[in-house]
Amino acid sequence: MEAPKQPVEFPKIVIIGGGFGGIELAKKLKNKEVRVVMLDRHNYHTFQPLLYQVATGGLEADSIAFPLRKIFKNQQNFSFRNAEVTNVEPERKVVHTSIGEIEYDYLIIATGSDTNFFGSKELEHYTMPMKTIPEALNLRSMILQNLEEALVEQDPVKKAGLLNFAIVGGGPTGVELSGAISELKRHILPKDYPELDISSMNIYLIEGSPEVLGPMSEKSQRSSQKFLEDMGVNVLTNARVLNYDGNTVTLSTGQEINTENVLWSAGVVGQVVPGLPQEAIGRGARIQVDEINRVKGQDDIFAIGDVAAMITEKYPHGHPGVAPVAQQQGQHLAKNLLRLISKEKTEPFDYFDKGSMATVGRNRAVVDIGKIHFHGIFAWFVWMFVHLMSLVGFRNKVVTFVNWMWSYFSYDRGTRLIIRPFNRGTMTEDTRIK
Amino acid sequence: MEAPKQPVEFPKIVIIGGGFGGIELAKKLKNKEVRVVMLDRHNYHTFQPLLYQVATGGLEADSIAFPLRKIFKNQQNFSFRNAEVTNVEPERKVVHTSIGEIEYDYLIIATGSDTNFFGSKELEHYTMPMKTIPEALNLRSMILQNLEEALVEQDPVKKAGLLNFAIVGGGPTGVELSGAISELKRHILPKDYPELDISSMNIYLIEGSPEVLGPMSEKSQRSSQKFLEDMGVNVLTNARVLNYDGNTVTLSTGQEINTENVLWSAGVVGQVVPGLPQEAIGRGARIQVDEINRVKGQDDIFAIGDVAAMITEKYPHGHPGVAPVAQQQGQHLAKNLLRLISKEKTEPFDYFDKGSMATVGRNRAVVDIGKIHFHGIFAWFVWMFVHLMSLVGFRNKVVTFVNWMWSYFSYDRGTRLIIRPFNRGTMTEDTRIK
Repeated sequence: MEAPKQPVEFPKIVIIGGGFGGIELAKKLKNKEVRVVMLDRHNYHTFQPLLYQVATGGLEADSIAFPLRKIFKNQQNFSFRNAEVTNVEPERKVVHTSIGEIEYDYLIIATGSDTNFFGSKELEHYTMPMKTIPEALNLRSMILQNLEEALVEQDPVKKAGLLNFAIVGGGPTGVELSGAISELKRHILPKDYPELDISSMNIYLIEGSPEVLGPMSEKSQRSSQKFLEDMGVNVLTNARVLNYDGNTVTLSTGQEINTENVLWSAGVVGQVVPGLPQEAIGRGARIQVDEINRVKGQDDIFAIGDVAAMITEKYPHGHPGVAPVAQQQGQHLAKNLLRLISKEKTEPFDYFDKGSMATVGRNRAVVDIGKIHFHGIFAWFVWMFVHLMSLVGFRNKVVTFVNWMWSYFSYDRGTRLIIRPFNRGTMTEDTRIK
Repeated sequence: MEAPKQPVEFPKIVIIGGGFGGIELAKKLKNKEVRVVMLDRHNYHTFQPLLYQVATGGLEADSIAFPLRKIFKNQQNFSFRNAEVTNVEPERKVVHTSIGEIEYDYLIIATGSDTNFFGSKELEHYTMPMKTIPEALNLRSMILQNLEEALVEQDPVKKAGLLNFAIVGGGPTGVELSGAISELKRHILPKDYPELDISSMNIYLIEGSPEVLGPMSEKSQRSSQKFLEDMGVNVLTNARVLNYDGNTVTLSTGQEINTENVLWSAGVVGQVVPGLPQEAIGRGARIQVDEINRVKGQDDIFAIGDVAAMITEKYPHGHPGVAPVAQQQGQHLAKNLLRLISKEKTEPFDYFDKGSMATVGRNRAVVDIGKIHFHGIFAWFVWMFVHLMSLVGFRNKVVTFVNWMWSYFSYDRGTRLIIRPFNRGTMTEDTRIK
């Protein structure tokens, strides 16, 4: 299980998860006197910020994913294992996986977050999450299958339910999904389904707090909500989902929505690896870490990114669950690990917030950079540029660029294929392909 | 279930299948005084000639598929139904489908062909066919999963089995698959799996007849076999598969091959729609049709493409199962249907053979055009050009072109992702996603 041509006396750093944090950490350890082993249940890195475009037929899944082996193909001290981690055994310094036991000198948990259904089996069963590529493809299939079904549905109530969409959670994912679906409604579906009265299709964005895009500036919150409303999305703030039975969403406001398309992006929980002492796990199942990302009460186990909660003065609830935090923690931890190995003094992590942005639709995005806020077409170009550049791999950049240009000028989306039929109500913990 | 804005007195033509034949037929009926309804279990058209590139990570699935609705979005007298046909009832002139009964005045069966396992449940269970996009994606997943498994496999025999490949059937599919896999072996896998001894990986192409590419010219047969052997593929001709238990392939020559990767492209059978009289079904489950593609013994049921067998002097066993035959039969039948409707005399079908080609690998292809045969880099460019131009949709052409250029200059393949994990031994008639 060792990386090739690496002296075994080098310390062995095991990273669980090939997300933004894990990748940056491993890269920074290139050519250092350590052995790096990365474990992931997928053999690819997922660029989560663009999952919603896969779900809505704008991009191929393969354009936003990248083989992990390829990222590190020139890194001698790196090896990848496609494995599911079952639990960690700190006493013996091993992780138990689907491919057997793996020993570590230092263990880094970079497993990210999973959808939070707040313990409701019903919501988990009937609503569609979108945290992984298989989930985004299921979502795409469900949307298209329901349209085909609506076409031949005689019962008007059922037909309406198949056409209506409810997106739960007004964060970036929910806002971007709502926008993308409203563009499908306006530009694609009327041409594809001349026999359907697409105008009768309703899109609801449901948010528990008073505004969408909670963490962003008031200015951006207001403009994104206006963008959504201009695009025909019904933005329901101060509304929480009490219940969904597969047909009707019941809201805390008493409103009921008849829909078979409920997209769930209302919250996340840390993907904790079993085996850690309970006192290390905090709110939202995030792992409590100190200022060098060391897990509370552990000497050689660390956690970075969404799964970690580093409580600081500036971030009393931990850092936001965004890619830059994970990347910076990964880079910073790499340095600190090397310091620990060479018995030097470690340095506390300090997050540099480059700002945040969200897109609502063509020519419509919002950007916050420090005190600067702007929105509209320029913000949209900034959003596209930043995301295009962040994609791993030149081929992915080119293919994505081609697709975006194509969509922009043709008002079309390339990939409306039901490649894997999706069976309603199969989204249970055991059957869900993550 | 009618197409919109079409007088119901117009004859209703129901087409089962959105393949090459069905599409050409429907197109040729544009603006004619008929109503066209197309049924397909997929909502997209599959460009089968490039499936092997999806299976080997060269192209995204979405690049070789195209939404059927989009192809016909400007055709007023066309409507599409995403439905599975269960059987036809000629007496009542209806087809029974997953979305209910559909009446027809004229029924055209354009269902194409499915993999022929020659009745062996074992072969169907353990080998991988490649006739649809889901099957090509399963194949891709299996290849990559077996490599990951080989990496951690301790037992040398099992490890060898995971690395060896057997491609059964020396037709274009088998030849192109073998070539693509040998390119993976030479250019990709050594970089992706430095810990594996890729040189120990063996690729076998198994063909029952004395030569590969049976229908092509001797010259092309010889050069393609030489190409394959130069690329390190073991071409085993005059060898039939007697048995495969999931680990060992037993050949009629007595040879045994230890492999867990068996790709089955050894033959096809017509995808007959139940309900037709038995006497209409001929060899290889192909539907017997007369010279205007009318089903034997039927007045208003027709069959075109792979599923149809039109016995002529020139083609005593029916026409070859290739796209041009299906396309030409579709176009020709459209004219004849209109003649039948207006009580004119129909004209017999005559196949114009434009020639055939196959690609083995980069700079290696064979082309037969009438008496002209050529091979090598020029043939390869011809092959690429013809296939690129045949792809439906401008976006697909561009994206595929980008991918091919990328692969050509980087010796790389873009999409090595296990997006849908594949479970070995789930390929039974009932569980197979077609």
